[in-house]
Amino acid sequence: MSNEFKLFGARNSVEEVEEGQILAPKFDKDGLIPVVTTDYDTGEVLMHAYMNNEALAKTIEIGDAVYYSRSRKVIWHKGGTSGLVQKVKELRIDDDQDCVWMRVEVTGGASCHVGYRSCFYRSVNFSDKARGQEPVELNFEETDKVFDPKKVYGDAPNPTQL
Amino acid sequence: MSNEFKLFGARNSVEEVEEGQILAPKFDKDGLIPVVTTDYDTGEVLMHAYMNNEALAKTIEIGDAVYYSRSRKVIWHKGGTSGLVQKVKELRIDDDQDCVWMRVEVTGGASCHVGYRSCFYRSVNFSDKARGQEPVELNFEETDKVFDPKKVYGDAPNPTQL
Repeated sequence: MSNEFKLFGARNSVEEVEEGQILAPKFDKDGLIPVVTTDYDTGEVLMHAYMNNEALAKTIEIGDAVYYSRSRKVIWHKGGTSGLVQKVKELRIDDDQDCVWMRVEVTGGASCHVGYRSCFYRSVNFSDKARGQEPVELNFEETDKVFDPKKVYGDAPNPTQL
Repeated sequence: MSNEFKLFGARNSVEEVEEGQILAPKFDKDGLIPVVTTDYDTGEVLMHAYMNNEALAKTIEIGDAVYYSRSRKVIWHKGGTSGLVQKVKELRIDDDQDCVWMRVEVTGGASCHVGYRSCFYRSVNFSDKARGQEPVELNFEETDKVFDPKKVYGDAPNPTQL
C-alpha cells in the first residue's frame, strides 16, 4: 500500500491547513480521525466511525470505506463480514483537517450492525407531549430492519459497549 | 437548566441502549460525545464538534445547538459571537448512543469559522490526473466565503490547532 507519510502533507501553518490544497490530516492522541459517512443520494448520515492513517490511506487507494475498529483494534474493510461494502463517491476534509466526511453508495442498503439502514435510526421526541419528560424519550425513524444481524454476524461479539 | 442525571437514562444493557426508547448517551473518558451537524434542507454536513452532558441537556432544552469547545474549554452556544445560530429541527442518536446527529437550520447561512457554508469545503481530488499523486491533492467545493471571518471574529484566536 501507499506510504502514508508521502500521501499526507505536513501541518506547517494554519493558513496551509485551512486554505491549502494538500491533504494534511490531523490524527488525535490515539492516532485516529473521526469519519462521518453519509448516503451519496439521500444525504442521510449512515454512521460515525474512526480511521487511523493506514485506514485513510487504504480508503483513498481502493475507493471502499476502510475504518479502524476501536473495539477490535484492527483495520476494518467495511462489508468484509456482512457484504455491505461502502463505495466512496466523494471524500471531504474539514477546515482544520481533523475530521473526514465520506459520501458513499452502500451495497445491500444497510450500514448499521443492528440491521437498520442508518445507525441513527432514533430521534429525540420533541412533541409537545414528550417535551420536558425525564428521561428523554426516543422515536424510531426506521421501523423495519434491512437484514437480520443474527443471520449475518452469527455469534460474533456485539461492538456496542456499555 | 435541567438536571442531566434525570434527563438521561442509565446504560444497563446493550438491548436497552440499542433497541430502547430512552436517551442514554455515552460520554467518552473526557466527558464528551461527538456531534455531526447537517443542513436540514440539503443534507450537507456542516460541521463535526463535541458536546458534554451540560451542552446536550442545554441543546434539548432551548432547541439551539450548544457545543463544548475543546480549545476554549467552555460551553459554546453556537452563534453567540457570529450570530450564525443553528436551530435544531431534529436530533438523532446512533445505535450504541455514543454519537449525535443534529439536523439544523442556520441563521446567516454559514457554520464554518473560516467563512464557508460548511466546514467540509474541500474534497480529495479523485480525477485520473490526480490519482496516485503524493501528497493527496484537494479541490475546493465552495469557492466563495459567506462572510469575512476578520470582520465577524476580529482578533479572537483561531480555533484551528496544528
